[in-house]
Amino acid sequence: MVQLGLVGLGRMGFNMRERLRAAGHEVVGYDRNEAVSDSTSLADMVSKLDAPRTVWVMVPAGGPTRETVAQLGELLAEGDLVIDGGNSRFTDDTHNAEVLSAKGIGYLDCGVSGGVWGKENGYGLMVGGDKELVERAMPIFDALRPDGPREEGFSHAGSVGAGHYAKMIHNGIEYGLMQAYAEGFELLEAAKVVEDVPAVIKGWQRGTVVRSWLLDLLVRALDEDPELDDLEGYVEDSGEGRWTLEEAINHAVPAPVISAALFARFASRRKDSSAMRAVAALRNQFGGHAVKKVGE
Amino acid sequence: MVQLGLVGLGRMGFNMRERLRAAGHEVVGYDRNEAVSDSTSLADMVSKLDAPRTVWVMVPAGGPTRETVAQLGELLAEGDLVIDGGNSRFTDDTHNAEVLSAKGIGYLDCGVSGGVWGKENGYGLMVGGDKELVERAMPIFDALRPDGPREEGFSHAGSVGAGHYAKMIHNGIEYGLMQAYAEGFELLEAAKVVEDVPAVIKGWQRGTVVRSWLLDLLVRALDEDPELDDLEGYVEDSGEGRWTLEEAINHAVPAPVISAALFARFASRRKDSSAMRAVAALRNQFGGHAVKKVGE
Amino acid sequence: MVQLGLVGLGRMGFNMRERLRAAGHEVVGYDRNEAVSDSTSLADMVSKLDAPRTVWVMVPAGGPTRETVAQLGELLAEGDLVIDGGNSRFTDDTHNAEVLSAKGIGYLDCGVSGGVWGKENGYGLMVGGDKELVERAMPIFDALRPDGPREEGFSHAGSVGAGHYAKMIHNGIEYGLMQAYAEGFELLEAAKVVEDVPAVIKGWQRGTVVRSWLLDLLVRALDEDPELDDLEGYVEDSGEGRWTLEEAINHAVPAPVISAALFARFASRRKDSSAMRAVAALRNQFGGHAVKKVGE
Amino acid sequence: MVQLGLVGLGRMGFNMRERLRAAGHEVVGYDRNEAVSDSTSLADMVSKLDAPRTVWVMVPAGGPTRETVAQLGELLAEGDLVIDGGNSRFTDDTHNAEVLSAKGIGYLDCGVSGGVWGKENGYGLMVGGDKELVERAMPIFDALRPDGPREEGFSHAGSVGAGHYAKMIHNGIEYGLMQAYAEGFELLEAAKVVEDVPAVIKGWQRGTVVRSWLLDLLVRALDEDPELDDLEGYVEDSGEGRWTLEEAINHAVPAPVISAALFARFASRRKDSSAMRAVAALRNQFGGHAVKKVGE
Repeated sequence: MVQLGLVGLGRMGFNMRERLRAAGHEVVGYDRNEAVSDSTSLADMVSKLDAPRTVWVMVPAGGPTRETVAQLGELLAEGDLVIDGGNSRFTDDTHNAEVLSAKGIGYLDCGVSGGVWGKENGYGLMVGGDKELVERAMPIFDALRPDGPREEGFSHAGSVGAGHYAKMIHNGIEYGLMQAYAEGFELLEAAKVVEDVPAVIKGWQRGTVVRSWLLDLLVRALDEDPELDDLEGYVEDSGEGRWTLEEAINHAVPAPVISAALFARFASRRKDSSAMRAVAALRNQFGGHAVKKVGE
Repeated sequence: MVQLGLVGLGRMGFNMRERLRAAGHEVVGYDRNEAVSDSTSLADMVSKLDAPRTVWVMVPAGGPTRETVAQLGELLAEGDLVIDGGNSRFTDDTHNAEVLSAKGIGYLDCGVSGGVWGKENGYGLMVGGDKELVERAMPIFDALRPDGPREEGFSHAGSVGAGHYAKMIHNGIEYGLMQAYAEGFELLEAAKVVEDVPAVIKGWQRGTVVRSWLLDLLVRALDEDPELDDLEGYVEDSGEGRWTLEEAINHAVPAPVISAALFARFASRRKDSSAMRAVAALRNQFGGHAVKKVGE
Repeated sequence: MVQLGLVGLGRMGFNMRERLRAAGHEVVGYDRNEAVSDSTSLADMVSKLDAPRTVWVMVPAGGPTRETVAQLGELLAEGDLVIDGGNSRFTDDTHNAEVLSAKGIGYLDCGVSGGVWGKENGYGLMVGGDKELVERAMPIFDALRPDGPREEGFSHAGSVGAGHYAKMIHNGIEYGLMQAYAEGFELLEAAKVVEDVPAVIKGWQRGTVVRSWLLDLLVRALDEDPELDDLEGYVEDSGEGRWTLEEAINHAVPAPVISAALFARFASRRKDSSAMRAVAALRNQFGGHAVKKVGE
Repeated sequence: MVQLGLVGLGRMGFNMRERLRAAGHEVVGYDRNEAVSDSTSLADMVSKLDAPRTVWVMVPAGGPTRETVAQLGELLAEGDLVIDGGNSRFTDDTHNAEVLSAKGIGYLDCGVSGGVWGKENGYGLMVGGDKELVERAMPIFDALRPDGPREEGFSHAGSVGAGHYAKMIHNGIEYGLMQAYAEGFELLEAAKVVEDVPAVIKGWQRGTVVRSWLLDLLVRALDEDPELDDLEGYVEDSGEGRWTLEEAINHAVPAPVISAALFARFASRRKDSSAMRAVAALRNQFGGHAVKKVGE
């Protein structure tokens, strides 16, 4: 049994605390929301841990994570370990590791996949950092990851940053997978050749090449709302897809599927497109083609 | 000076009659709209022409063109010539040529580009069919095409169907060109780094790599409506883009730009996307991500 | 226990015979390859079946399937049933059903997914046709489909053609899914931030959002060849992806991911691209940019 | 007549000096290549100019431009003016302007289009910076820009950075335009329905919707090499396309055409694709589909 601090008890962190405790570990959580926090401040949380301490950071990527790491750099001591389990950009990890390294504090980055299902099923984990630190934190990883062979739900991806890099690419792939199912769904809906679209998709869950966990979730969604018409086709994106495309640019790797999936999300959030107004205007200019005027 | 029949006096045919007459040719037009027609029926039009006759067909592609050609097959005689100047699919040309060939009537297909500006500027022409028939109709082509060297506004693309094939690809390219300008316009509008977007686009008309007639038309459109916000980003497509993509499929040629331009038009006409509802539903299933419910 | 004829004992048909026999059914197979055939001719096969007969056709799509169905129309009798389990285009099904219907013979189309793994795991099935015929053939479908709830590996998609339509869309989605993983793999390989790419991908098998059967197969492939450098990046396509894109065109549905996946396959088979030669030529023309001459 | 310093006498700078001198302006050039330089050092060049001085920088974007600007900051004096005419990223301009502003030196960024043809035809110019500085440098801009109305070959796009921003988007559009023509060319070549592809493309130069300067250049290239088979389909990219796509990401603007054009260039430079090896491996795993082994 190990002891750890856990900063950030939102949707993900809260569930992870549950799973860690269920595995018998001691978790001292801290969150600004007193209703869920086990400690009154970051300093209070640290004071409740025995050295050498391990603190898992599970706060929003970017500023919040960098600030939390900087504060932990002040509060922790040589020999302690910080694990960033959030969705940080891999370029933040080098910075965070350096900040802590100056104080003799270790750093691991851990990409975490699994969403709200992770509490029950376990989380897929991708870790970056020194081998010995990874070994030291393995009881925590083992508690968080799914049952089954460790190497099927956990990987030590490489040195600092590699864990978040792997998670970033994981999410880029995820964008592509979701869009592929979505295009198929729209085609089935539009063509009306298949009479029972939800039945067909449910029937893809076993034996087919396209079976997957995402497909199982699509079946769940269709069970609740067979034409998915209770909701709007409005889709946010949360950073990793953009970063994946930036990496494709940096490494001159074509990524037509991942970019198409990202652009489809961008387009889903526009009320009207100035690009398409330009195309409409051009067609009108050369061909006298009718245009739709606003308000018509 | 030559004499010809002209079937179809819509936006394109009407202007072409003007241009042909301005060049000194004799045109007997026929249109169901009596207000613009020079004859009371197709038969009446044919009767007013001296053998060997030439009839230019300028009616909507597909059924209307095929039916007009079939009727001309009944009305015309051996040695006559039919030119289809509409936007027929190239596969229709083989059929039309055979129907007429059985009666000894010649057939040419002619792709016509230039829109409403052709009356003034001349039309870009791409012709398919036998060399001797092309030569025979050259006075007509010369009257319709722009001033300047013949080979810069006219081509004999190959045998029957090649003219419309060339026009189809021309239009596929046109889709891509328009979308490229449109994406650039949207980026300029969105980023707001450039303060005077219409001035920048106007300034691209001379000296730059992107100067083109389409750019000139975009400048015209922006002169009339600097943010193009009088109209909606709703864009029709008229067949050739789809056919071009089908040809890409048939010949296993990647056409990412032309397909992206076509899909952008499809997307511009959807109120909501079932594909994106599926993506939203999936994100909600695995991550508990918020969705927009209809009516919220 | 039921009895059926099975035409076509290639990779798929051979395995299906095994699975059907393992389930206790009587299968009379016919294949032009005598080494695997249970009968000397299609007629011989039919003669060995008791009326009302059921014949499963598992031959290449297009001409071979249409011809086999036509021959069965001659050999079978009223009340018999033909099931096309091949990869026919859904538009062929209407034709095949009519040919047989004229003789009082029933017809079902069945999309079959699962590849070489189906013999062991069962095949995902999507069926089109009349409900009573589907019920009649259910023992066969039950033997072929995977264990577990019937509705998770089998669907009655709609009337004739709907089974193959569902399978076509299934394969279109499959193209997109595969390309999404492939782009992620290429990015991981190119960036070299992740040091152990196969370990990361193996670690995605449990708990992550991207877990799927295709991912499991990618892990298998990487186990055998960790950089996949024993083989060339040359990928065929077998029709369904093209048909899916044609359906997207027909129904004006944007399909950027599926088309990108198809185009990536097209591009993988080109030695050199005339499109990119044109771009190189243009850059050279306006900018004096260096080009690679052949043989340099 | 004005006097200016010109740093960088490569392909672009050399031609611009010619054009400026032909317009009667006095140009003191500096280049590390003594054979073309009018001065022995940057300091020597500056010493030959009368205050208030104007120096045009025409060196490679990134480090070289930033360093040249920094050195000019040391050498120039309050009231002088630096114009960056290179292909700098717009984000560099803010930095460069600040460096110079600290010394009271003015700064303008000027996107320049037109390639090797600019010497003869004039260059399309897009300028960012203060209005009064733009006015002061107008004689230079007027000499460099094409004949005709100023606003058709020159724009004051906005404040510092806006000129390079406009040029970046210009080049992103250019990528899309070139790829659109290229896809059309490949389709014409592949389908072989059009017998004389160069004649068709030449015939698009007048009257058609797709006429443009790039089309004229394609005609030139085809005149020299009708099948473009003297060169390889290998295409570099020089930054602006990537930056445009990064801006699309930053502003959540879909850019499917520009990204497709960029990815086509990336793909043109790969000998083999690990992505497509992954797809081939997957197909082999599930379907037993044949793969091409290396060396086969």
